[in-house]
Amino acid sequence: MVRGRTVKVLATRQSGSDTKRDPTELIAEEPLTIHRDGEIVATTMRTPGHDFELAVGFLHSEGALDGTNLVTVRYCGTGSAVETEFNVVTVDTTGGGPDIAARLQTVSSSCGLCGSEAIGDLRARLGLLPSGPSWHADVLAQLGEAVRAQQPLFDATGSVHAAAAFDTAGNLMVVREDIGRHNAVDKVAGTLRLEGSLPATNLGLFISGRASFEMVQKAWASGFSILVSVSGPSALAVSAANSSGLTLVGFARGDSMTWY
Amino acid sequence: MVRGRTVKVLATRQSGSDTKRDPTELIAEEPLTIHRDGEIVATTMRTPGHDFELAVGFLHSEGALDGTNLVTVRYCGTGSAVETEFNVVTVDTTGGGPDIAARLQTVSSSCGLCGSEAIGDLRARLGLLPSGPSWHADVLAQLGEAVRAQQPLFDATGSVHAAAAFDTAGNLMVVREDIGRHNAVDKVAGTLRLEGSLPATNLGLFISGRASFEMVQKAWASGFSILVSVSGPSALAVSAANSSGLTLVGFARGDSMTWY
Repeated sequence: MVRGRTVKVLATRQSGSDTKRDPTELIAEEPLTIHRDGEIVATTMRTPGHDFELAVGFLHSEGALDGTNLVTVRYCGTGSAVETEFNVVTVDTTGGGPDIAARLQTVSSSCGLCGSEAIGDLRARLGLLPSGPSWHADVLAQLGEAVRAQQPLFDATGSVHAAAAFDTAGNLMVVREDIGRHNAVDKVAGTLRLEGSLPATNLGLFISGRASFEMVQKAWASGFSILVSVSGPSALAVSAANSSGLTLVGFARGDSMTWY
Repeated sequence: MVRGRTVKVLATRQSGSDTKRDPTELIAEEPLTIHRDGEIVATTMRTPGHDFELAVGFLHSEGALDGTNLVTVRYCGTGSAVETEFNVVTVDTTGGGPDIAARLQTVSSSCGLCGSEAIGDLRARLGLLPSGPSWHADVLAQLGEAVRAQQPLFDATGSVHAAAAFDTAGNLMVVREDIGRHNAVDKVAGTLRLEGSLPATNLGLFISGRASFEMVQKAWASGFSILVSVSGPSALAVSAANSSGLTLVGFARGDSMTWY
């Protein structure tokens, strides 16, 4: 088991008429509630581990840290061994950050928003990305295998997402795993934020799942130059990438990939 | 293009040093805001189509329709051709349903909840599932291929999730596709609810993605007897399935599968 991030259970593996009952390792999933300055912002189902990075990365992506600085990141409670104590992370800032409730509830009681308006909102908040470095296909072609080699949780369970930050030479700066693909990205972004490495103007973001709109939003918010996905992007993700200046690559499988 | 649920864009497909620029079809993704009785409940990024089923299925899974009946399900607005009009669905009930804000914000300002408490809450709300029919491995072995044959959006885009309801003979009652795996399940549940077919005591639920805790929650809320996932379950999903009486099968790939 990988430091409490996996759990062993008995299961019956069946292949045709053959069945075998033995222990199998599962990925852990527990709720994490994220507070900023004493206010609840969100609860996410995540794989425990790198919780501080997850909380900071999530808040960063949502713009909840704009115009303010981090003071402390801590678990709820006082250090006693209560299980739930590690399911709440509180991020305290110097104050003056945006009103989170307003940010997360931008949908009014009118006829809602459409995708192009959502992109417009991001453009207004995040601006256009600066022009980044050049990215070469032969470097991108190696990412999948390189990330896969740094996935102890996938090795153990066969079922977990990964995200990674990489440079133009294909070096992996941060690799994070989580049952949720959003969480994996937030853990990467939070790690870079805590290191003082954002915006990630000269870095790319690799994700093991689909490139949905929210993945582009997260890459944009952290200033990545390119987003590389093993699976396909949505139409809205491509529009958002075009509006942001983010380079978007999908179906990245070995030396085969699609540039949008 | 599949009735506005996909979008064509120009993209460059690269394979080694070969590149080719041509139109490619992408899965559509647009925000859908769900109202119940005039109150905003949630906004989800979804693939348009079966929006009424999605709204009803989501509310059903969250318990927001408990103890009340559906009156109307409609788009926002009055029938004019405004794009955003189709990004809000309002579900009106006979009233008396649970307080949604309280339900969705069950996390207090204390030290949060842990997974086992989340399961306890579901057990209190949903009770134990009645004992269902027997499920045979040879029937389950055919599901993946059968569902795949009813995925026009996957055919077009190569990247979309599916969920399906099936009976003990392996007949598919409903198949739905969406960029979000949660949405695909909600569309299936909503279809059954609108048909008056819930609880789905004699049916199973097939999902193309991972069996996370929320997938078990949704299957449980709709009364399915079994949940079959192409990928792996989380540890919390297995615990929740054990607490509910739901049979859980993971890594269902042809005649190979794991019973938890």
